[in-house]
Amino acid sequence: MLKGKMVIGQSGGPTVVINQSLVGAVLAARGEAAITGILGARHGVAGIMNEDFVDLDDPSKEQLELVAATPAAALGSVRLKPGKAECERVFEAFRKHDVRYFFYIGGNDSAETANIIAGMARDADYEFRTVHIPKTIDNDLRVTDHCPGFASAARFVALAFMGDDRDNAALPGVKINVVMGRHAGFLTAASALARQADGDGPHLIYLPERPFDVAQFAVDVRRVYGEFGRCVVAVSEGVADADGNPIVTTGERDSHGNVQLSGTGALGDVLASHAKKAFEGEKVRVRADTFGYLQRSFPTVVSEVDAREAREVGAFAVRHAVKGDEDGSVAIRRLASEPYASEYFITPLSTVARETRSMDDAFIHAEGNDVTAAWLDYLRPLVGELPRIGRL
Amino acid sequence: MLKGKMVIGQSGGPTVVINQSLVGAVLAARGEAAITGILGARHGVAGIMNEDFVDLDDPSKEQLELVAATPAAALGSVRLKPGKAECERVFEAFRKHDVRYFFYIGGNDSAETANIIAGMARDADYEFRTVHIPKTIDNDLRVTDHCPGFASAARFVALAFMGDDRDNAALPGVKINVVMGRHAGFLTAASALARQADGDGPHLIYLPERPFDVAQFAVDVRRVYGEFGRCVVAVSEGVADADGNPIVTTGERDSHGNVQLSGTGALGDVLASHAKKAFEGEKVRVRADTFGYLQRSFPTVVSEVDAREAREVGAFAVRHAVKGDEDGSVAIRRLASEPYASEYFITPLSTVARETRSMDDAFIHAEGNDVTAAWLDYLRPLVGELPRIGRL
Repeated sequence: MLKGKMVIGQSGGPTVVINQSLVGAVLAARGEAAITGILGARHGVAGIMNEDFVDLDDPSKEQLELVAATPAAALGSVRLKPGKAECERVFEAFRKHDVRYFFYIGGNDSAETANIIAGMARDADYEFRTVHIPKTIDNDLRVTDHCPGFASAARFVALAFMGDDRDNAALPGVKINVVMGRHAGFLTAASALARQADGDGPHLIYLPERPFDVAQFAVDVRRVYGEFGRCVVAVSEGVADADGNPIVTTGERDSHGNVQLSGTGALGDVLASHAKKAFEGEKVRVRADTFGYLQRSFPTVVSEVDAREAREVGAFAVRHAVKGDEDGSVAIRRLASEPYASEYFITPLSTVARETRSMDDAFIHAEGNDVTAAWLDYLRPLVGELPRIGRL
Repeated sequence: MLKGKMVIGQSGGPTVVINQSLVGAVLAARGEAAITGILGARHGVAGIMNEDFVDLDDPSKEQLELVAATPAAALGSVRLKPGKAECERVFEAFRKHDVRYFFYIGGNDSAETANIIAGMARDADYEFRTVHIPKTIDNDLRVTDHCPGFASAARFVALAFMGDDRDNAALPGVKINVVMGRHAGFLTAASALARQADGDGPHLIYLPERPFDVAQFAVDVRRVYGEFGRCVVAVSEGVADADGNPIVTTGERDSHGNVQLSGTGALGDVLASHAKKAFEGEKVRVRADTFGYLQRSFPTVVSEVDAREAREVGAFAVRHAVKGDEDGSVAIRRLASEPYASEYFITPLSTVARETRSMDDAFIHAEGNDVTAAWLDYLRPLVGELPRIGRL
């Protein structure tokens, strides 16, 4: 049995259930004799480099349960994708504190970080286990059926469209809602769950998996408006033209080299102005909202399946690491959709690190402006029951 | 006993509980012998002018309960403030259909419409009763302690800030959130309920009741950032400079002559660029979100007090009208805050029509960038219990 301390950290954009994974891992670790101390890293690898740790043997079960139910990363998060030198500092800190287990809750970049550090440990003949715990509202990790954090954000988006579509039916016009998702349209596609009857919005759904053509957008909106006297549009913040250029950006980039898309209403406003032009001379009300960070942090809007699975992947990671077999990333296998059932397994870090995945073609309507029934079958059990819409 | 049909309509921006008022009125009317038929007007006065009515004797109790729990105006709403000629057409439609009771769910403009039509009925010696049923997320109606629809929107704003502040604590930076409210800061001020411990955001709250100075805003943000290493800002979409000019608008106006403020991210983006300039050369992440229409339409985020009172003001309006005393607007009198208790009364239409109210000075911090304890005492019982934040 490999005995030593464990470090756990959180990375990337928070979710409403990322703390469930943290608490799942901590509670599982408390029952493992191999784990001699539980250290939480403040702000992910940044905290490890600075040896800024929280003692997680300390907090009571009650405090941890409160943390589990609280959105966003309780340990603090980080947008740093460490280079080789930084990974070396992380590894040194691990050796210094006799850390033998490392759990990193995050997306593909976090899996990559864990993979690099695992390689260093091997090279140094330092016995060490690391398991990546998946988390992302984007649902864009490979191998796993879906990612913890996604279903709750999807629930937020579905509810938001459900209410906003009723608002639009009451005061008709064109309404454009911009949804998070840089390269993958999963979250934007979740808007389709808002539909309960013919004519319900969203009437158009634009995903980053298909080129976005502003002229075609205007044609689509006019057609829907002609049919229903109103039009609700879901559009991913990540839509780009046929050459892969974003429709609009602020020009800012983060340390991953990613262009800033969130935290601005620019795309919505630009699309609204295109739609207004399409209706020039007619009295059509055009509005745009950008859902923004609420999608990943709004308290009380949580998918039950998501909260449970986020907790369980944390615990599974710890139990797997202590068994001492291999490093890896926890993934979810769907056993059935109705009733929903899933199990967890370990996939090599390299199969999750770096690359992400986008929506299957089978989930995207041939016209490129909607989703398919297969997508709804995939999504519905994850998001859970939604309120029924009353009508007169 | 004045016998005849009743018409009920919904007007202005929807809320998540406006259908509670509709259903409260309809169910009360079904028990009144004086009311010989219940007509719902599609899209408020626009529907009355076109005699576009829904028979509300028809729907089952079950259907009505589903409607009551569904956000946004189930009858459709309208942004029309009718002139004299339009009010005459409304009155003609009432005479034609032997309508003796009119209930209009809306804000101060709806009270004004009801008042004009009541005057026409008096002039024509047409026996007629009209009662205005208050509704607005802005909380800006006079006389009443608070407005149905406000507390649920306030709950959404408080929860949104609670989650977003945790997100900001995890990934520190400057975050600006723009909240609805053209002239009154009540909804923006509700953000303060998100705070549960020292250092929690929002750290700055800007209301339309005080002039907004862009230079002072930059100074404030720098000061907070210096103290906490992060800064969460709540700002009303209606903030204006000392001369009363909005900080930014799209230039569009509605039929009330109101400048478009909602349905665009422009103000947030402009304030973010001011904040970025204030930190020029430093690496400070600045983001802005505009909460938009979700604030008034998001399903499942409902204040229990609000839902109950919205239902009861609808029923109260009908019972009062049938008693045959006088026209008026239903208002809420707070009897106690702890435990919360309220009662309903009738105030003359003229006391609610036209003018609105803004926040009391006692609710606004002397610095003009925060609220007072008195505000929280006023607000807390309306919004109800909020989830507790867990921390490490």
